[in-house]
Amino acid sequence: MRHALDIKREDDFAAWYQAVVSQADLAEESGVRGCMIIKPWGWGIWERIQRLLDEQIKLTGHDNCYFPIFIPLSYFGKEAEHVEGFAKEMAVVTHHRLKAEDGKLVVDPDAELEEPLVVRPTSETVIGQAMHRWVQSWRDLPLKINQWANVVRWEMRTRMFLRTSEFLWQEGHTAHADKADAMDETLKMLEVYRAFAEDVLAMPVIAGEKPENERFPGADATFSIEAMMQDGKALQAGTSHYLGTTFAEAADIRYQDSEGQQQLCHTTSWGVSTRMIGGVIMTHGDDDGLAVPPRVAPHQIVILPLLRGKDEDADIINYCEEVRTALIGQDVFREPIRVLVDRKPGKTAVKRWGWVRKGAPLIIEVGPRDMEGDKLSVLRRDALWREDDGKPDFALQDRHDFVFCAGGILAEIQQTLFERARERRDAAIRYDVTDFETLADHFRESETKPGWVAVPWSRPTGAALDAIVEKLKTLKITIRNSALDADVPDAPCFFTGDKAVETIYIGRTY
Amino acid sequence: MRHALDIKREDDFAAWYQAVVSQADLAEESGVRGCMIIKPWGWGIWERIQRLLDEQIKLTGHDNCYFPIFIPLSYFGKEAEHVEGFAKEMAVVTHHRLKAEDGKLVVDPDAELEEPLVVRPTSETVIGQAMHRWVQSWRDLPLKINQWANVVRWEMRTRMFLRTSEFLWQEGHTAHADKADAMDETLKMLEVYRAFAEDVLAMPVIAGEKPENERFPGADATFSIEAMMQDGKALQAGTSHYLGTTFAEAADIRYQDSEGQQQLCHTTSWGVSTRMIGGVIMTHGDDDGLAVPPRVAPHQIVILPLLRGKDEDADIINYCEEVRTALIGQDVFREPIRVLVDRKPGKTAVKRWGWVRKGAPLIIEVGPRDMEGDKLSVLRRDALWREDDGKPDFALQDRHDFVFCAGGILAEIQQTLFERARERRDAAIRYDVTDFETLADHFRESETKPGWVAVPWSRPTGAALDAIVEKLKTLKITIRNSALDADVPDAPCFFTGDKAVETIYIGRTY
Repeated sequence: MRHALDIKREDDFAAWYQAVVSQADLAEESGVRGCMIIKPWGWGIWERIQRLLDEQIKLTGHDNCYFPIFIPLSYFGKEAEHVEGFAKEMAVVTHHRLKAEDGKLVVDPDAELEEPLVVRPTSETVIGQAMHRWVQSWRDLPLKINQWANVVRWEMRTRMFLRTSEFLWQEGHTAHADKADAMDETLKMLEVYRAFAEDVLAMPVIAGEKPENERFPGADATFSIEAMMQDGKALQAGTSHYLGTTFAEAADIRYQDSEGQQQLCHTTSWGVSTRMIGGVIMTHGDDDGLAVPPRVAPHQIVILPLLRGKDEDADIINYCEEVRTALIGQDVFREPIRVLVDRKPGKTAVKRWGWVRKGAPLIIEVGPRDMEGDKLSVLRRDALWREDDGKPDFALQDRHDFVFCAGGILAEIQQTLFERARERRDAAIRYDVTDFETLADHFRESETKPGWVAVPWSRPTGAALDAIVEKLKTLKITIRNSALDADVPDAPCFFTGDKAVETIYIGRTY
Repeated sequence: MRHALDIKREDDFAAWYQAVVSQADLAEESGVRGCMIIKPWGWGIWERIQRLLDEQIKLTGHDNCYFPIFIPLSYFGKEAEHVEGFAKEMAVVTHHRLKAEDGKLVVDPDAELEEPLVVRPTSETVIGQAMHRWVQSWRDLPLKINQWANVVRWEMRTRMFLRTSEFLWQEGHTAHADKADAMDETLKMLEVYRAFAEDVLAMPVIAGEKPENERFPGADATFSIEAMMQDGKALQAGTSHYLGTTFAEAADIRYQDSEGQQQLCHTTSWGVSTRMIGGVIMTHGDDDGLAVPPRVAPHQIVILPLLRGKDEDADIINYCEEVRTALIGQDVFREPIRVLVDRKPGKTAVKRWGWVRKGAPLIIEVGPRDMEGDKLSVLRRDALWREDDGKPDFALQDRHDFVFCAGGILAEIQQTLFERARERRDAAIRYDVTDFETLADHFRESETKPGWVAVPWSRPTGAALDAIVEKLKTLKITIRNSALDADVPDAPCFFTGDKAVETIYIGRTY
C-alpha cells in the first residue's frame, strides 16, 4: 500500500522521525547550531500544551513569574561545590557590543563583561536567590512558583524536539517548611504530568522514581514519567525532584518557624519541555505522518472546499463556512471545536495529503455533489484506509448529523489514540525475564524494537548500584524508573537476590 | 491626607514609579545587570496582555512561530551594510563551556565558538532567512507570522519595564507581493495596537507616523502609538514598520509572480513589549499605588475575609467562597469574572492596603456583621476615598445585588480609567503655540509636567529635518508622531513656513 510519507517506521525509525518533523511542517533547522525554528503547526501544538498544562499548574496553587535569561557565572559556584554531576556545557556571554571593522561586524574587544553571564540552562540558582529574599517566616510557605521560558544547554548531538540546544519548557520551583510537604508537592506534580501525558497527549506513561544514579544532581529523589516510543525505546517526558535542603543550603533559604527558630526550607523542582512534542510524534505518528491528539490539535477539523475556478466555487465556500460556523458552536473537551476552512490555492488532493501528514484529526472535503445532498465527506486520521481496497476511508455523512456528532467523534479519536498506544506499550513489556543472560539476549536480539523488561528490585545504592549500571551499559540499556503504583513483587531482586521492594523498568532510551 | 504609598507623584515622579513597581509587587531587580524578575502580579498582567493581544493577532490572520534566541554574527553583516543607525549594543555568546579551576567555575578557553552568536535584539535577520526559504511563488503571499519571545539589547541606563536589557515582546513579520498590501498590513497592525491600548489597557494613544529621523533603521515608514504619562512625557508604546524592499533585498526574499517574473517582496514588522506595563503604571497609578484596568487585572475582585482566630472564621470563609462561586459564574468583557479569596494569614487592613497598592479593581471585605446581613463591604480602586472625611469609601451592598452588578461595575471602572486618562492627556496638549520662542518657553518653564505641543507640519526631510531635530534637542524634546486621523491644518508649517500637510506632536519622552 502507498503511504503519505516516502519512508516507513520499520525501515528507518530515526529517518522516519525526521521526515514527520519536516513533512508535518512542525519544525526546521534554523542554520544556528542545535536550534530549531518551530513552525506554525508545531508551535500551535506547543501553545495547546502550554495552555492546558498551565491551567493545571495554576489549579494546584502555583503562581507564574519570570526570571532573567542570564545568570552571573559566580551564582553557579555554590552549586558546583556539592554537585559533581553538574553539566558544564552552557552558552556564555562574554561581550556586550559589536563594532564595524573593515566593513564587517566583529565583537568589540573593549566591551568585555567584568563577569561572564551564562544563558540559563535551568533557573534553580537565580530562583534560589529570590527565594532567599522572599521567604522570611512560616507564613510565606509554601512558596510555589513556575515559569515558562527558553533555556539553553550546549548539546553536541541534537535532534529536533528531543534534544536541542535551545528548548522551551516550564520549570516549577517550590519551597516548603518540611520534607513531608515538599514530598507531597513533588508527587502531586508528578501526578499532574502523568494525567496530562495520558489524558491530553494520549501518551501512556509509567510514573515512578528514578534510581539513585539517575537523580538530578543535588536532588534527594527524582521522579519521572516514562513513555514508550514505537521503536520500543523509552522517552523521559517529565521529571519532578525532591531537592531536600541541598539547594536551600546553597542559597540560604530559611524561615522562622512558629516558635521563632530559623529552619532550612525543603525545595522541589519539576519540568516538562518541547520534548513532549517528540513524544507525541513517536507515540502517534504512522507511515502517513503525524496524528495529533484532538485535545492538542491546533485545528481539530480541517475543511477542504473542492474549488475548480468556476462560479459555483463561491457557493461551496459559503457552504463550508456555514459548516464551520455550526461546528465552532459545538464544544468538545469543554472548549469550542477548532475548525479551519483551508481556502489556499492548490489541488484538493495535495492539500488533503498535507493535512494527513500534519495529523489533523478530521478532514472534510466538500464538492458540488456533497453540497447538493447536504452532505460532507469525512476522513478520520486515526482510521485512514479502507480495509477492502486500501483507499482513503471517506464516509459520506449528513451535514447536520455530523455537526452534532463531531465532538463525540473527536473524543473517540482521542480515546482510540490512547488505547492503541497503551496496548502497544503493554505488549512490549516483558515480565518473564529472571536471569541476566536472558536479559542480555533479549536486548541483543531485539535491536530494532527492544521494549522494556520489568524486574523485581531491592533498591541497591552506591557501589552495588554502580556495578549494575555498568553491566547494563554494556547492553546499552538503563533503569528507567520504578512504577509508583505497582505491587511489591513477591520475588527476590533480579540483580542482588535480596528481598525486592519494587519493580523497575529497564530499556533503551532517548 | 495619608496615602498608601509614602511618596507622591508630584514630589518625585521617577521615585514614585519605582515605589509602585516595588510596592505593587510587579517586579524587582534580579542581581543581573539590567534584567528584572517579573513577580506574579506583574506577570499576571503580562499574561492577560499576551492572551488578549494574541487573539487579535490571530484574528487578523497571523500564525505564531518560534525562532532561535541566537543569531550568528555573520547574519548581521548584510543589514549593517545599509543600515547606519544599526545599534551595536548586544549580548554576544563566545564560548560554550565552563570548567572547574582552583575550585571555581571559569569559562573554558578551549570552548570558544568558531562564530560568535548574538542573543537576538530582534529577529528580522533570522526570520528574513526563513522567508527566503518559505516564499517561492505569489501563492505563498502574504506570509504573516508572529512570535512571542524574549530579546536582549544591552542598555546602559535601565528602568524596570520601560528599558531593560532583557525584555519580552511580540514581533510580527510579514511579506507581501507589493507596497499597497504591505502598507495595508502596517496600518492594520497599528490600528490593532491603538484599539488594544485604548480598549484593553484604557490608555489613550495617538496613532501616527514618525518623522523620517525617528524611523526604524532600514524602514521606509515607521508608525507608532504614543501615550502621555502623568508627568506629561510621551511613551512610545508600540511601533509598526513598512520596510519596503530593504530587508527583502538583504535576505533575498523573492517570489515568482503570476506571469512567471521574479519579484522582491515588501515586508513589515511590528511589536509591543513589556514596556506597556510601564505605560499602564504611569497612566493609571496614583499616590495609593497602581490601578489595573479590569480587562488586564489578574484578579478583578479580591475578597478579604475578616478572620479573628475564632470558630466563626470557617463560616466567613464559606460565605466568601460562596460569593466567589457566584461571581465567577458571571461574565464581563465576554469572560468569566476573575475572583480571589485571599485567605493568607495577616491583618485584614494590611492585606487591604496591599491590594490597593497592587490596584485590584474591586476589594471586598467580609466580617461577621456583613455575613449576618447578607451584605458585602465593597471598595472601588478608582474611587478609593470618601470626599467628606477622607476615609476609604466602602459601600455596604446587598450580596445578591452586587453579584449581578459586578460585571457592570468592572466595565464602568474600565471606562472611567480611560476617560480620566484621556481628559488628562487632552488637557496637556497645547494647540496655541505659533512661534519657536513660545515653544522654548513652554518646555523650559514646565520642567515637571511639560505635556505636548501640537503644531502644523510640512514633512521636511534630510538636512532641513536634521536642523529642526537639533534645535528641538536643545530643549530636550522630540517630534513624537503625526496623528493619522487629524485634519490637515489650515496654517503654514511651524518650522518651515511651507504649506502644512499634517499635525505633529512635540514633547519629552521616555
